[in-house]
Amino acid sequence: MRSAEIRVSEIFGPTIQGEGALIGLPTVFVRTGGCDYRCSWCDSLHAVDSAYRDEWRAMTTDEVWSEVTQLSGGQPVMVSLSGGNPAIQPFGALIARGHAEGYRFALETQGSVARDWFAELDMLVLSPKPPSSGLETDWEAFDACLLMARGKPQIAMKIVVFDEADYAYARTAAARHPQLPVYLQPGNHTPPPPDDHDAPIDIEGVMERMRWLVDKVIADRWFEARVLPQLHVLIWGNRRGV
Amino acid sequence: MRSAEIRVSEIFGPTIQGEGALIGLPTVFVRTGGCDYRCSWCDSLHAVDSAYRDEWRAMTTDEVWSEVTQLSGGQPVMVSLSGGNPAIQPFGALIARGHAEGYRFALETQGSVARDWFAELDMLVLSPKPPSSGLETDWEAFDACLLMARGKPQIAMKIVVFDEADYAYARTAAARHPQLPVYLQPGNHTPPPPDDHDAPIDIEGVMERMRWLVDKVIADRWFEARVLPQLHVLIWGNRRGV
Repeated sequence: MRSAEIRVSEIFGPTIQGEGALIGLPTVFVRTGGCDYRCSWCDSLHAVDSAYRDEWRAMTTDEVWSEVTQLSGGQPVMVSLSGGNPAIQPFGALIARGHAEGYRFALETQGSVARDWFAELDMLVLSPKPPSSGLETDWEAFDACLLMARGKPQIAMKIVVFDEADYAYARTAAARHPQLPVYLQPGNHTPPPPDDHDAPIDIEGVMERMRWLVDKVIADRWFEARVLPQLHVLIWGNRRGV
Repeated sequence: MRSAEIRVSEIFGPTIQGEGALIGLPTVFVRTGGCDYRCSWCDSLHAVDSAYRDEWRAMTTDEVWSEVTQLSGGQPVMVSLSGGNPAIQPFGALIARGHAEGYRFALETQGSVARDWFAELDMLVLSPKPPSSGLETDWEAFDACLLMARGKPQIAMKIVVFDEADYAYARTAAARHPQLPVYLQPGNHTPPPPDDHDAPIDIEGVMERMRWLVDKVIADRWFEARVLPQLHVLIWGNRRGV
């Protein structure tokens, strides 16, 4: 694999974005393979665990671009760069190419690796990982990502909340960055095994956790936080590719 | 009732906004009584049908403001003015009062009645009603609402879609106003009778209609439209006051 190649787990869509600031917007997803994190509850292990690396493809910018435009029928669309951690891939050339044809780009990353092409994005979603992930946040690395964006893309924080400790973490993270819109998302307690695309989803459990999280936010009068479920999980369950 | 009084059906919250551009955001709702429309599928008949007018209160701005701040604990929050058609109420003074203390205001209206205080709003949501409502849109009145906003608030269109004819209407409405973000929302086929706050909701039916609407938007490559369900209905069913 040469340095300009992008390691891709899957490219799919358009379907609607299921999470955060762009929820409901038709989007083509470029999900990259490989991650510097191993969150205990990762719902995309097929894009993270190197046991699946045989399924990943080393693709040139041209090859990725060709798949994206084929999926969108050549019509400009929002492209979400996700993973894994897409920040460890060389996306600068793809973004420049897409912008020239009216496409827009959002990046979803934990904020552990900063890249100069962050400033070329239309949307940067930083998802620092709460205690339930089993990881600790490197806030210096996170701040470096913000700096690298140079105030150009829209920026939002998205924090997954499984429990009280995660919620306390989210409060602290938001207080560190009062200028950033915050999206809270109840954790998926029933993520699929990576090989089972049709594992059933506990809808009532998801709703129960939405109610719990809304109640917390309201009780604390945290009126700037937005609370959203993973809409794609509600609509399609844990199926991949939608 | 004096002219400065606001006819209120209910004031409740804070809870999260369930629809459209502000989905997920903690909000206090001021739902007014009375409407110049009678949509066939109205899900708020208790705030529309004059059979319920005995439950409505004629309140001064002071009285409304007092209830809003009590609910929010004096903490600035988004206030949604809804109905019925809240545009037929005198909200200018309430908005000025709330702004002085850091509150923000969103109006949800069909766009049939224009008011000069639209320019004072933070968000104006215009929901023209599709054919399934049984009504015809007066686009001149709609355009007057846009003009009255004088480019000051954020503006979005939200269109309920029950069927193919509604979808075609949404396409036409969006084409008339290409500068406005569009939110499509599948209709609620199981709205509650006005006296039954706990009527069951057909979650699988809602999801089925979300999938149908997403499929339409993607097939047409309508990549600017956002498709969102009524989140509060998913979380709480048809219960009122949440």
